[in-house]
Amino acid sequence: MSRITVLGAGMVGSAMARDLAARHEVTSADRDARALARLAEAGITTREADLSDASVVRALVADADIVVNAVPGFMGFSTLKTLIEAGKDVSDISFMAEDFLELDGLARQHGVTVVCDIGVAPGTDNVIFGHHDVSMKVERFECLVGGLPQRRHYPFEYKAPFSPIDVIEEYTRPARFVEGGRVVTRPALSEPEYVDFPTVGTLEAFNSDGLRSLIQTMPHVPDMKEKTLRYPGHIALMNALSAGGFFSTTPIDVRGQQVRPLDATAAILIDAWKLAPDEPELTVMRVTLEGTEGDARVRYVYDVHDVFDEATQTSSMARTTGYACTAVAELILDGTFDVKGVSAPEIVGRHPGVFDRFMAYLAERGIRYTSTRTVL
Amino acid sequence: MSRITVLGAGMVGSAMARDLAARHEVTSADRDARALARLAEAGITTREADLSDASVVRALVADADIVVNAVPGFMGFSTLKTLIEAGKDVSDISFMAEDFLELDGLARQHGVTVVCDIGVAPGTDNVIFGHHDVSMKVERFECLVGGLPQRRHYPFEYKAPFSPIDVIEEYTRPARFVEGGRVVTRPALSEPEYVDFPTVGTLEAFNSDGLRSLIQTMPHVPDMKEKTLRYPGHIALMNALSAGGFFSTTPIDVRGQQVRPLDATAAILIDAWKLAPDEPELTVMRVTLEGTEGDARVRYVYDVHDVFDEATQTSSMARTTGYACTAVAELILDGTFDVKGVSAPEIVGRHPGVFDRFMAYLAERGIRYTSTRTVL
Repeated sequence: MSRITVLGAGMVGSAMARDLAARHEVTSADRDARALARLAEAGITTREADLSDASVVRALVADADIVVNAVPGFMGFSTLKTLIEAGKDVSDISFMAEDFLELDGLARQHGVTVVCDIGVAPGTDNVIFGHHDVSMKVERFECLVGGLPQRRHYPFEYKAPFSPIDVIEEYTRPARFVEGGRVVTRPALSEPEYVDFPTVGTLEAFNSDGLRSLIQTMPHVPDMKEKTLRYPGHIALMNALSAGGFFSTTPIDVRGQQVRPLDATAAILIDAWKLAPDEPELTVMRVTLEGTEGDARVRYVYDVHDVFDEATQTSSMARTTGYACTAVAELILDGTFDVKGVSAPEIVGRHPGVFDRFMAYLAERGIRYTSTRTVL
Repeated sequence: MSRITVLGAGMVGSAMARDLAARHEVTSADRDARALARLAEAGITTREADLSDASVVRALVADADIVVNAVPGFMGFSTLKTLIEAGKDVSDISFMAEDFLELDGLARQHGVTVVCDIGVAPGTDNVIFGHHDVSMKVERFECLVGGLPQRRHYPFEYKAPFSPIDVIEEYTRPARFVEGGRVVTRPALSEPEYVDFPTVGTLEAFNSDGLRSLIQTMPHVPDMKEKTLRYPGHIALMNALSAGGFFSTTPIDVRGQQVRPLDATAAILIDAWKLAPDEPELTVMRVTLEGTEGDARVRYVYDVHDVFDEATQTSSMARTTGYACTAVAELILDGTFDVKGVSAPEIVGRHPGVFDRFMAYLAERGIRYTSTRTVL
């Protein structure tokens, strides 16, 4: 039993606190009293706190053996810096916009072990990639991933457990890939293609900017890309809205009021895209690795299909994201992963002894990755 | 040479004033001084005036032999009533929302000849319908019609010579048809179908509420429908926007401001849908009539494809709409059409001697309807 502070009690942070509380002494901190009240009912110690205040964070984590950082992305970097300076090991899922590897030197100075971006994607796909990168010469990496409502409805064929404006941000950011050893940039939402899945049928995959740390850490892999999955139809509509000016951030006059089209669009979408509290959603991911292993050209394909857990009312997104992060927290706590500094999740996957335990941890929670190996 | 007052100097009103001024003494009235200035350059008498004031209208038309009513639709009915009470014959293209046949009794009392809805559609298709209704037993009438930009662009594949909010109004009003002798109502934008045209290729036709007076005046015709034509893709996007809440008139909160989604959408669309001043556009219409003529089952098909006139910088929409209205003004002036009361254009088409002269008038202006007769 260890002392763990979970910063952030949002959907993912709360699921992680509950998961860890079965084995550890957990303190959850957030500014949202209602979210904390639900965790308190589950016997978790809670602290209502302004996590944007570094002194507050320092006090909250003072006696923690490890910190799980699940604050919103915009405050992820500064919070992580505070935690490192406080001498804490961290498993981080804040999904910050900044480059967390910039804090590697600081973390080494303080002798702490930090793992960032450790969710489903980024996160689990990186762990898989890192694991195989040790034993084969990877030439191609592709990750297809999406969080989807179980029931689809015209016209959006989509709902999200977070706000439309965050989704649209992903739909407007150019996507960076590696092709032939060079970083290339493609428009957001570009190159849609149909991909069949045994569970949900045909989905549409489009370019998204999801490689993150892999562009830095895997310079020897010539072809890498991430695509996001949606039900067919969604991308065509989003492309039309984008081209039609509905995602513009330049204010326009709407009957005398200055309005950004993006804000109006996000407000129009907010109800249509909102998952009901108990509405089933799912996560689907396929990771493909091709390359040379020994004398053989091989392809590994990992698939996962995870669904909303009715028993605990935990979304698939919280499960697949949060349990990857708590798995790594456990691996740091028990010393399985003990690299000092800030590590991307592919570095964790490369580390001896990590991969099987990480996958077993997820499987114990019902998140089962299937894999195939094909000799090409 | 007659004295004619043209009320309204918008796109269509201005084109009509120029057309009539070649043969008549024309006075154009509008509140828009800039539009009038352009007509004054062409030698037309102009009057800057508030046409919503009945006493102003009465003074403007006092010495007119006939009035062409081209005011905006919302003030069409009241203006027409004023004109009838002033004892004036009228050719009316104001396209009012009200039922103009309600003014029939008043017009008979005043002994005036009034024709309403006399544009391209409604208008010319009704004239064609009325013409054939005299000599055959019509069983099916269908009008496919659209005004389109010559160049199409993703994602809207459409531009309009009027404001997006008026177009969207047509896209949200349920469409009334006659099927099997009964009036049926279908959702706006429903039942899209591809139709090939020799000039523009494949277009998409969808249900629109365009039958207007025909529902009353043609009770003996069991199947009648109008559909609007757009380039393929437009309807799918409009249906998605409609279903997605972008046409809603219920205000929502957009970062603290109350905004109607429809208003935001119209403001976003306004630039993308705006025809440049000299941008080529076109009008395409196909009128189909099926029934029994003598002993034969026959089908008549009329097609027109009219384009922006570069020489006079007159849009196809102004030409096909306005010249139908001025044709009827001439037919009233010379006594060819002399029915007292308010007539729908199909009644004009039924009248002896009208059809050939009406079509010849349009042909002289380059608007050539081709027709085929097929024995079924």
